[in-house]
Amino acid sequence: MEVKTRFQLPTILQKQHIARIEGDALLIHDRRRYPLEDSFVTCLSVDEVAQAIQAMVTQGGGPLQVAMTTVRFIARQIHERRAANTVSTFVSGAQKLIASRPTNTTMARTLRAIVAEIGQWYRCDSVRDLHGDDLVFYIDEIVNRYEKSFDTDYDAMSDHGAALLGPSEGILTTCFAEHSFILTLMKAREQGKRLVVYIPETRPYLQGARLTAPALQELGFESYVITDGMGAHFLREGAITTYLTAADLVTMDGTVVNKVGTLANAIACAHYGVPYHAFSMAPDETKATQDEIIMEERDGVEVLRFGSVTTTLDSLKGKYPAFDCIDANLITSIITPRGVFTPQSIETGYAPNSDTKGAGT
Amino acid sequence: MEVKTRFQLPTILQKQHIARIEGDALLIHDRRRYPLEDSFVTCLSVDEVAQAIQAMVTQGGGPLQVAMTTVRFIARQIHERRAANTVSTFVSGAQKLIASRPTNTTMARTLRAIVAEIGQWYRCDSVRDLHGDDLVFYIDEIVNRYEKSFDTDYDAMSDHGAALLGPSEGILTTCFAEHSFILTLMKAREQGKRLVVYIPETRPYLQGARLTAPALQELGFESYVITDGMGAHFLREGAITTYLTAADLVTMDGTVVNKVGTLANAIACAHYGVPYHAFSMAPDETKATQDEIIMEERDGVEVLRFGSVTTTLDSLKGKYPAFDCIDANLITSIITPRGVFTPQSIETGYAPNSDTKGAGT
Repeated sequence: MEVKTRFQLPTILQKQHIARIEGDALLIHDRRRYPLEDSFVTCLSVDEVAQAIQAMVTQGGGPLQVAMTTVRFIARQIHERRAANTVSTFVSGAQKLIASRPTNTTMARTLRAIVAEIGQWYRCDSVRDLHGDDLVFYIDEIVNRYEKSFDTDYDAMSDHGAALLGPSEGILTTCFAEHSFILTLMKAREQGKRLVVYIPETRPYLQGARLTAPALQELGFESYVITDGMGAHFLREGAITTYLTAADLVTMDGTVVNKVGTLANAIACAHYGVPYHAFSMAPDETKATQDEIIMEERDGVEVLRFGSVTTTLDSLKGKYPAFDCIDANLITSIITPRGVFTPQSIETGYAPNSDTKGAGT
Repeated sequence: MEVKTRFQLPTILQKQHIARIEGDALLIHDRRRYPLEDSFVTCLSVDEVAQAIQAMVTQGGGPLQVAMTTVRFIARQIHERRAANTVSTFVSGAQKLIASRPTNTTMARTLRAIVAEIGQWYRCDSVRDLHGDDLVFYIDEIVNRYEKSFDTDYDAMSDHGAALLGPSEGILTTCFAEHSFILTLMKAREQGKRLVVYIPETRPYLQGARLTAPALQELGFESYVITDGMGAHFLREGAITTYLTAADLVTMDGTVVNKVGTLANAIACAHYGVPYHAFSMAPDETKATQDEIIMEERDGVEVLRFGSVTTTLDSLKGKYPAFDCIDANLITSIITPRGVFTPQSIETGYAPNSDTKGAGT
């Protein structure tokens, strides 16, 4: 895995620090408490894993990595006869994980693909024979392949991302844009580009302040935590020259779905003529337009708290739409492993049987 | 004071609940702790009052009310021979208060005007004779007149504000826009208009969550606390139809200065065609353009905290520009006691010797 050897990712993105199996348990790094605590939530069943994802123990690309680790975990449970040795065990596990975060379609797509492959194990004697009837070995091989494929994708996306940056950039982001974003910054720096990063804290969970900012500090980048309302301020001052975020979902009409707050910054960037690029593993080919997006509305009480600390009267009402839809006209480009696409060209680039490279690469 | 008899203001805006004199002390309502605590900071000197304003014990229109109470306080200190009976005592007190919050020009203007009047006391025997040589009585009369004048202004501004609202409105605000805003909502409701209010929490001090939201709840308005990044989300959904804020300062070229975060929402409103109206007692006639604005940059460490609770690593860097400049092209109107002006017409409306009424009234 070339990416890992060339660049040491920050602690929070190292696979074993996102999720790992220890004995009977699957441990999930608790991003809700990081960096003030660096602890793991212990899950003894797939139900507990799904509950942890639902409770936002991990977020962003975390659920994907947790889901892949959960597939390994199920194989071990079957091996130790703590779960029924049928494909249904995997299917029902995948269903629980998918239901725990309906907006995360990369996790859903990956789980469906992996479970489809696992079906071979139960249908084909030859597949079992080929792996010495060792289910754990068979499953690990599959998951290793998917993990490596994601690493290759992150590597490609960050190549494209770094190429889009000029010699001196003020970067705005939102939430925690993870591998592609971090690797983009690392590669751009290696290319001699000067970067200053502005990180909105991303209320209510503060992923910007707690995940992005410590990761960039660990890597030695000049970076500043700002509140979620300050992006426009620094855009107006000319301090911010590029906006980079992840995308939880991209529909085929070029709409980006990402953490609430992304839209406000995208509009401000458009107003000041600053480009907005979103990283996406791939658009969701099952969603032709934004009308098909299932949006997650979380409990408004979370806006009235920081962690366990109440910020105001409990009797008030809050609203917490978890995600924004950013319309295509606000997006400069969508950076995918296949290349850099305008929102308008993403449908062509990802049409069935297309091997089109992105317009910008 | 007609305003007070017709509408019962929320607790936090009642004069005695902003600042009052008790014995040797001037008490300032601690807006940093409200509503979780309803406590007052005790000041025994003008220096302590200035320190409290600097430390953000009060904010928005609070410093103005505190400053007027401080003038009464100085008169009592002189009466009790705890301060020198000269105009310099008032001058130096005013200077300390003005320096404590350089962006608050209404406080500065009011203090300068009041102290100029006080000069009469020391220059004219007849003024002293007319008031039975009772300095406290003389000062109270002056301050009462200024307070009543502000109440009349709030009444006029909220008449204009309520008239701008349609029969059913989703109102976005930022920070705590105080009397004019609250009275606008109360009058609009009395006129049978249906209102829902969206209140960004306003990090880092959370004035929205802690001041605006409890005040509107106390008055029985349907209102929701949102994070500072969510305004655009609800604009895109069509839930927000009007944006109303205070203005800490308006320059003669129609630039509004207000709490950081105001700009992002103003840009989003412009993007979705939603009007933005800012309340201002008056533009600052000494500032022809935005180039003359002195901006307050506060300690970035405040962004890394909620009150005394640290939100992330202490070693990170934050940035906290306290205010936004909102350019005239983003502003629908500026609501003043004289009427409703476009940003382009404010200079004409407030030209020396002008008694022009606002364009919109």
